[in-house]
Parts: sequence; structure tokens; C-alpha cells
Amino acid sequence: MNESGYVHGYTSRECHRLTEQANILSELLHHDTMFAPGTLVLECGCGTGAQTVFLASRNPGARIVSVDVSAASLEQARGRVAAAGHRNVEFLEADIFELPFPDALFDHVFLCFVLEHLSQPAAALTAVKRVLRQDGTITAIEGDHGSWYSYPQTPESSRAVQCLIDVQARLGGDSLIGRRLYPLLAAAGFRDVQVSPRMVYVDHSRPELVEGFSRNTFIAMVEGVRDQAISLGLIGQPAWDKGIADLYRATESDGTFCYTFFKATGTR
Amino acid sequence: MNESGYVHGYTSRECHRLTEQANILSELLHHDTMFAPGTLVLECGCGTGAQTVFLASRNPGARIVSVDVSAASLEQARGRVAAAGHRNVEFLEADIFELPFPDALFDHVFLCFVLEHLSQPAAALTAVKRVLRQDGTITAIEGDHGSWYSYPQTPESSRAVQCLIDVQARLGGDSLIGRRLYPLLAAAGFRDVQVSPRMVYVDHSRPELVEGFSRNTFIAMVEGVRDQAISLGLIGQPAWDKGIADLYRATESDGTFCYTFFKATGTR
Repeated sequence: MNESGYVHGYTSRECHRLTEQANILSELLHHDTMFAPGTLVLECGCGTGAQTVFLASRNPGARIVSVDVSAASLEQARGRVAAAGHRNVEFLEADIFELPFPDALFDHVFLCFVLEHLSQPAAALTAVKRVLRQDGTITAIEGDHGSWYSYPQTPESSRAVQCLIDVQARLGGDSLIGRRLYPLLAAAGFRDVQVSPRMVYVDHSRPELVEGFSRNTFIAMVEGVRDQAISLGLIGQPAWDKGIADLYRATESDGTFCYTFFKATGTR
Repeated sequence: MNESGYVHGYTSRECHRLTEQANILSELLHHDTMFAPGTLVLECGCGTGAQTVFLASRNPGARIVSVDVSAASLEQARGRVAAAGHRNVEFLEADIFELPFPDALFDHVFLCFVLEHLSQPAAALTAVKRVLRQDGTITAIEGDHGSWYSYPQTPESSRAVQCLIDVQARLGGDSLIGRRLYPLLAAAGFRDVQVSPRMVYVDHSRPELVEGFSRNTFIAMVEGVRDQAISLGLIGQPAWDKGIADLYRATESDGTFCYTFFKATGTR
């Protein structure tokens, strides 16, 4: 994936969204991401470091090498991790398909919201497996936009979400990849593959999730593909506007919102 | 709801399916259904007693009154509970909308897979609230067929599942009710409403769920509406056959299957 192929773009609103998402989901996704002191971890596709800060803070004894294909994102990640006071992360510009490391170097490989953007996720898993030692482990975390549903839900809100799925597919990604993690890891030859779904359920009794997840993470992500969806002819302006309005409608006091992330682990 | 309006019918295969479902899901749905000794519990819509046996066995000190609109189902429920050796359940033929009990009699009302079949679930909640004492509590458990997705998933497998949703809707039910439990209970005037989703995630590492849930619970339920779906013109025979075959395809070794139940509690 080159920079122009990243569905969510590189705007400052997007950076804010990624940070919000990482904060609100940190406990859900990362509470059980723990490495023994001395573990050498490769984080592939760290982006602006939204997940890196959690990896680093939860695992102060681990040595983390975080790589990304975007030099600009890496610069932001460096700043973010330094600002948080972590000294156990090194950053490196690298392509996941051409990792500049010897075979079997790492104890663990960590991928979060990366495989969904790649046209060849299976090949990516094979590439990272090369730099993982025998009996080393992998963590892959992905969402699945097809896991979204809400109350109320309308044909237009469903269509708006489908636009996000379709735009990502046009860019070569697969935003329905959460449900595929088990077969992907198994086919890449990892053993003891375990997948644990992490469902985000939002209703009015959970106002921090209404704001932090439904509005500022999920709907913001859908809104982010507006121009592409309309210019690709996937949807017209009136249907789009109603779809977005209907998504916000499901965040009102009698609405509910559901989405599921998947966390997979495996052993080389 | 009268007997003819029950989407799943009253066949022996359906009775077997309900039992299989109850066994495989017992821990997931009922592990936290616990009542103090002496609690007087009303179970509405007990059917053939598939859930009643778990209520009774987990709460030997509770006194349970189980009602259903079908005399034939009650007869099976009586036999099932007696065979399991439980003596803390009484059965009574009754309509949820005309419960033959004085106001505020019960400490707890329990509903499992009942509201989804009613054309007036809100009115049903108001009706059961009448027989619940002040500060008494309610549990409502429902599935949500719109929460299903799988890998692989095809237009035909999606359509077959949509037939189940549509047939149930034609009969006046709402099989997407899981996501609606929060607003339904809140609108009925229950306070401290808490909804906890219970997701069933199935892959090849969980063979008991492949058999017990994906095949013998969910796909069996879809297959159960075949004749109605075809005679109502919702789908043609070839598309139906491919849909069912594709659902089974997702239970093979590289397939995954997802479904979510919702458990809601509230206080009067």
C-alpha cells in the first residue's frame, strides 16, 4: 500500500479520529497485550503511533521496533511517543513486504488495523512470519465494518456504511477482514490460532461510548469517505446526507450502536 | 401471539433444535442469572421448558412460575423439568397480555426468546411490569438475526437469513429485537437498564460450536422457514438451495460464523 491508497487519508481530523479511537478502545483491545521484559516486538504499520503509545506504556520492559511506510506518519509517531515519555520504541521507515530485518529476529509481531488496508494480507502475514523466531507469537487486531448495526437502522444508513466498505475495497483493502483473521493466520502456517471478538455495544447508559466511539470514531470514519463515495458514483448527495443523519439518529437517547473488533493470536 | 403465529413451528425437529440451542448457550446466557433463595420468579413464554431447566437448576432456592400460551408446549415443559428432577417450578397456561396474577406479586420476571415473537413487545413489557413488585427486577434475553455474518458470506446466504427475518416479520415478530432491548425496557419505565451483548464467535478451533450453534441452532432455524419463504415468494428454490449450501460452507474448516444475543436487566 502506498500513501495515496490509505482509505482514511492523512488529514488532521483523521489523526484526531485515530487518537480518539485508540484512547476509547485501549482497554478493550489492549488490556491483554502483554509481553515479558526483554521481549523484542515488531509493530508493523504503526501509522501516527496511536496504538504504539499503549504498547509502550503497557510493556515498559519490552523493546519495540515500530515501522511504517509513511515517513510523515512516523514523524508524528515519534513525537507522540516521546511526548508520552516512552524510551523503549525505535521507529523505522519500511514496507511490510520488504522488511529490512534478518530471519527470526523478533519474539513477537504486532499488527493493528493494518491487514485491512492491504490487497495481499496473506502475503503480508508470510512476510512478517519470516522475521519471527520459531515459537514466537503474533497479534493481529482488525475491525469488521460488516459487523456494524444500529437501532434505528435505515436503508440509507446501511448504504452509507456500505460506501465505506466499497471505497476501501476499491483501494484494494478489505474492511470485512475481522471475521477472516482465523483462516488468514491458519493459512499462513501459524499454530494455536485463537480469535477473540471484542464487541462495542453502545446505548444511552454509556455516554462516553456514544461520543467516543459511535460519533467520533465510527461515524467520523464513514464521513471521511464522503467525497470518494460520491465521486465514484456509489451514492448520491441526498442519500448520503440522509444516511449520515440516520447514523447520528442512532446515537440519540433511544438508539443503540454495535460494532465488533477481532483480536487474533498465533504461534510460529 | 397465538400458536399458528410462532415462526419456528412446533415440530419435533424444532423441539430438538430448541434443546440443542439451550444446552450450547446455557453458560453464555444464564451463567449470571441467579436469584436469592425464596425469590418468586415468573417465567413468561417458557415454551417446552428449554430454558426453564436451567433457571430451575441454577436457582434451586427460587420458586418459579412458568407460563406459556401453548398447552402442548407446557406439557412437554412439565415432563422435561420433572425428568430433570426439579421441584421448584409450577406451570400455568396463560397469555402474557392477560396474566392471571395480582399486581406486584413477583420478585423477578424472566423472558427468553419471547419478545421477538410478539407484535406488541412494548405492551408485553407493560403487562409483565404490572405483576412485578416495586424494586423487583426483570431479565429479557433475545437474539438478533441481523447480527449474523460469516466468512465466507455470499449474497445467497445473506438472502436466506433475510428470509428468516422477513418470515418472522410477516408473522408480526421482530427478529432484530436484541438491539432494541435497551429502548424497549427504558420506554416501559424500567430503571437501571443494563444490556450486555453475548456474542457467539465460531471457527474451526471450536468444533462444539460449529455443530451445536452454527449448524444445529442457527442454520437449522433458517432451514425451518424454507416452505414459508418459498410460498410467500420471498425467494426461489435455486437461490434458497444455494443460500443454505453457502451457510454450511461457512462451517467448514476455514469458515467463521458470528451471532450476538442480548441480555437486558432492569428494575421496576
